[in-house]
Amino acid sequence: MNNAFPQASADCVQPPRTIALVGKYHSPEIAESIRLLAKYLHERGMTVLIEEETACNVISHLELGSWASGNFTWLGAHADIAIVVGGDGTMLNAARQLARYRVPLVGVNQGRLGFMTDIARSDMLTCMDDLLDGKFVPETRMLLDAEVVRGERSVVSNLALNDVVVDKGAIGRMIEFELFIDGEFIYHLRSDGLIVATSTGSTAYALSANGPILHPQVSAIALVPLCPHALTNRPILVGDRNEIEIRIVHATDSRAHFDGQVTVDLRNEDSVRIRRSEYSICLLHPPGYSYFAMLRQKLHWSERPKEH
Amino acid sequence: MNNAFPQASADCVQPPRTIALVGKYHSPEIAESIRLLAKYLHERGMTVLIEEETACNVISHLELGSWASGNFTWLGAHADIAIVVGGDGTMLNAARQLARYRVPLVGVNQGRLGFMTDIARSDMLTCMDDLLDGKFVPETRMLLDAEVVRGERSVVSNLALNDVVVDKGAIGRMIEFELFIDGEFIYHLRSDGLIVATSTGSTAYALSANGPILHPQVSAIALVPLCPHALTNRPILVGDRNEIEIRIVHATDSRAHFDGQVTVDLRNEDSVRIRRSEYSICLLHPPGYSYFAMLRQKLHWSERPKEH
Amino acid sequence: MNNAFPQASADCVQPPRTIALVGKYHSPEIAESIRLLAKYLHERGMTVLIEEETACNVISHLELGSWASGNFTWLGAHADIAIVVGGDGTMLNAARQLARYRVPLVGVNQGRLGFMTDIARSDMLTCMDDLLDGKFVPETRMLLDAEVVRGERSVVSNLALNDVVVDKGAIGRMIEFELFIDGEFIYHLRSDGLIVATSTGSTAYALSANGPILHPQVSAIALVPLCPHALTNRPILVGDRNEIEIRIVHATDSRAHFDGQVTVDLRNEDSVRIRRSEYSICLLHPPGYSYFAMLRQKLHWSERPKEH
Amino acid sequence: MNNAFPQASADCVQPPRTIALVGKYHSPEIAESIRLLAKYLHERGMTVLIEEETACNVISHLELGSWASGNFTWLGAHADIAIVVGGDGTMLNAARQLARYRVPLVGVNQGRLGFMTDIARSDMLTCMDDLLDGKFVPETRMLLDAEVVRGERSVVSNLALNDVVVDKGAIGRMIEFELFIDGEFIYHLRSDGLIVATSTGSTAYALSANGPILHPQVSAIALVPLCPHALTNRPILVGDRNEIEIRIVHATDSRAHFDGQVTVDLRNEDSVRIRRSEYSICLLHPPGYSYFAMLRQKLHWSERPKEH
Repeated sequence: MNNAFPQASADCVQPPRTIALVGKYHSPEIAESIRLLAKYLHERGMTVLIEEETACNVISHLELGSWASGNFTWLGAHADIAIVVGGDGTMLNAARQLARYRVPLVGVNQGRLGFMTDIARSDMLTCMDDLLDGKFVPETRMLLDAEVVRGERSVVSNLALNDVVVDKGAIGRMIEFELFIDGEFIYHLRSDGLIVATSTGSTAYALSANGPILHPQVSAIALVPLCPHALTNRPILVGDRNEIEIRIVHATDSRAHFDGQVTVDLRNEDSVRIRRSEYSICLLHPPGYSYFAMLRQKLHWSERPKEH
Repeated sequence: MNNAFPQASADCVQPPRTIALVGKYHSPEIAESIRLLAKYLHERGMTVLIEEETACNVISHLELGSWASGNFTWLGAHADIAIVVGGDGTMLNAARQLARYRVPLVGVNQGRLGFMTDIARSDMLTCMDDLLDGKFVPETRMLLDAEVVRGERSVVSNLALNDVVVDKGAIGRMIEFELFIDGEFIYHLRSDGLIVATSTGSTAYALSANGPILHPQVSAIALVPLCPHALTNRPILVGDRNEIEIRIVHATDSRAHFDGQVTVDLRNEDSVRIRRSEYSICLLHPPGYSYFAMLRQKLHWSERPKEH
Repeated sequence: MNNAFPQASADCVQPPRTIALVGKYHSPEIAESIRLLAKYLHERGMTVLIEEETACNVISHLELGSWASGNFTWLGAHADIAIVVGGDGTMLNAARQLARYRVPLVGVNQGRLGFMTDIARSDMLTCMDDLLDGKFVPETRMLLDAEVVRGERSVVSNLALNDVVVDKGAIGRMIEFELFIDGEFIYHLRSDGLIVATSTGSTAYALSANGPILHPQVSAIALVPLCPHALTNRPILVGDRNEIEIRIVHATDSRAHFDGQVTVDLRNEDSVRIRRSEYSICLLHPPGYSYFAMLRQKLHWSERPKEH
Repeated sequence: MNNAFPQASADCVQPPRTIALVGKYHSPEIAESIRLLAKYLHERGMTVLIEEETACNVISHLELGSWASGNFTWLGAHADIAIVVGGDGTMLNAARQLARYRVPLVGVNQGRLGFMTDIARSDMLTCMDDLLDGKFVPETRMLLDAEVVRGERSVVSNLALNDVVVDKGAIGRMIEFELFIDGEFIYHLRSDGLIVATSTGSTAYALSANGPILHPQVSAIALVPLCPHALTNRPILVGDRNEIEIRIVHATDSRAHFDGQVTVDLRNEDSVRIRRSEYSICLLHPPGYSYFAMLRQKLHWSERPKEH
């Protein structure tokens, strides 16, 4: 089986020397994986850095003082690669934190295959050999850069690897907003909200809201309305160079969410402006990785019947 | 209001000298429009060519012998622009016929605004002035190139501006096929069929099958399953450089359709191979045209409330 | 045109003597309608009662002291019919308040046709003649009766004419709950929530969440998941004698909403128990009313083409 | 776990004496099951009748002349129960054939659990004991009765347990029809067709066309449009006493299908009239059967997490 979409991107395939380890927060069960990885990589001659909250979390499993730890800024400055142990959520956070430092990510899941955490815990150490030998396949994923503008002022900005969601808060049933693309008025909508998703995010929240699946190679941004009042407001794909603006017209209670992990309160007349980030994230996949094979497994698509 | 997506493409904005007229077939009601256009363009010094079937159709309204007529090959060789009078279906046919000759198209509708026939009959002649003055805005739309392969042999091939659809025929309820992308097996599906649509086709049949809307600027191909047996088989977008192959595994009765206008019977083990065509079509829009303004009108999206 | 679904229900067609007027809250624009109705009905010999908040709202338009006003309990005890001026939201509130007193409702809209407010403001007074002459057609709509159970204790209960919705609050992306029907475990779901809708509610929030339309005559309750994590969790219809229980397994922040107008905070392990209420509401429609004709207009379904 | 929907229906729980066996056509692999069942039931003192085409199919596995065989009319006249071996398709055919004779059906699948074939091949013989001991639970399912009317004449009529589908044939993309309910015009639609489904059919073709799931206890008929041109034409549920009429306005090529097994060509101005049949079918389920447990397994709904 050949891989339909090799996406070589020369700038992220250097043989690593310094490797950061990032674990799922508040998850004692990843401690053992982190310890095994740290030990193994150290034995292979790598410098191992541990993200500071991860280090706190797994401290009893690590020999105190043996490993350097620090925050994402420090990891970004020193690590050649970051290995992320946990689920897709842990990957999203690491991606937003490390994108600007161009640190490629490798994902290790703790049980269930993730959309981005390719490597099973049981294969973890053997996979490390391929990784250190430069056999991993890089794949570039775009991020979104969003800011909330109140009056003339940008009050908050953040990145998102999956999606930026503007939605109703806890009380009101619908929010009312206007959508603009590159400054052009597109529509006025009453709905539970709008998901603005990357191809990476197209298999996450947007999929459950009836959005399409975008292959990572497709340079587009998906606009997926949440329970739109008008039945003809369907998912729309625009180019990745378009600037999207969501202007709150009327909402008792409204929020913006970045990857479902960071939330900001919105007020009437706030604008959320979203464009493709200047930063991308590089995912490193084990040899033989196929995006569609992963999807087939995650979505239970039919394999060929046995008799074939 | 500024237009978000000006897509200047230098090769289709030359001032026209020879203009082809193409009308909806079997539609006597377009005769008067063709006559008016022919006369007006002639008075403005243009050479007017009339597509031969259109000419037959409207013959009594034209002074016999005053206008040159011929088939699409001849039009393709001589015309600088083709004006198409009718609906989107007439545009689809003209696009498939003229794409290889790089003749830009202008669409005139006979009543209802079309997705591609921008110009209302009532504005037709005043629009001609802008057209002849080079004020129309070019927009490039990709086509699909599809062939049916039986054994080792290509048995038929055609272009499509909207979509290539593989579906069940009249009797059987479902067909069974395998999908490959760039030679990689993607899934095995039982369904009523699969729509392979361009961005242009995304607002046609694919939309009624729950597919997303693709802005013409998005370089992607949409794969939209028709009544898939498995609920997790959702619309997928792949890049416009991918080759898509649909291999019929089992079907009592199956067909391939090109823009819903040309139909080919399929047999078990036939493959339908689809890729982006080397040809594109250039649509010429009147000044002030906006893709989203057109969509807003066609899909009854909300304008801003009056009190704004 | 004959009406497909006459739903005579003998107990609500008595000639009225006492009529309650209920207006949309905080809407000065309904004052004039209330005044006109009050005056006209008084002249026709009716006793006119005005709902107390409505009375406050329109007080400057009414001759102080001329009209009796009181709360819904008092209206329920004395009114033969309630005329509701406003939108569907005003009807929902009046229905929940008056259902237990079996007061039939008549809906007058202030501009746009509602799903339940049949009568246009301009036809209001002429319609009153038909109403007083007993020519209105009664239609029975069921309500839901829901309670939130915490531990062994029922902490809140309410009625709903449209729907009971359990959903995420402002922060968390998904809630996790279990669904039981008549005590049987049905499924465990992670989603934005679940809509439990009557046929009346099937054209409201549930429709925008991809639920089906239920004719009011269908004795069923619709369960429509909001952005379910699993793509195979589709809208389900159960009988109107089933008891539905939603048990919160895990939610950072979760709410129950009654008709989108009353909201209750939920905690982990809370249960929301929903069954058909013992009360129904009787809507009185003007002669010639057709449910499907109303839907056709609201949803822009195609009429027969003109040439027919 | 108690079953939410026991639907006892006294008229189909008599202890059987004569049992019909019906197998999937053209499927040699069911021969062994038929032979085992026939032998076992004979040993238990039952009179065994074999449907004639089934008998032909499995003849080499049966001692020639040992078993009576005949057509469905003859089975209908003599059998107390029919055991159907195959898939849901075999059940559909048997139901349409035997409904008028009120013969209850038991379904045995040959590998994969069906929506109606509850019993696994491996449990087949042990289940027979419960069946003969009267421990099976009866459940009544309605059928549709449909006729095609041309001019004043009924040209064909048939029953359907799942659905009556009116759709396009092989060539044309859309058909154009009008929908009437109890003689009232509902809408004019251009689409690929319309599915009219029972609750039983709601988990079959209608589900893949985005229809809702109806519990068998819900007395309703689902109207699910196939790829409707207008996005606001959504699935509708009407009561089971309504008469539905689909009048073909314009179709190059159109068909009516009964359970996807019997197909009739339609012409312009033909009407397909559908109502609930006077006959129902009784399904006999093994003790402990639960409709929702079956759905949960077929649709891969989440069980409770293990740790619960």
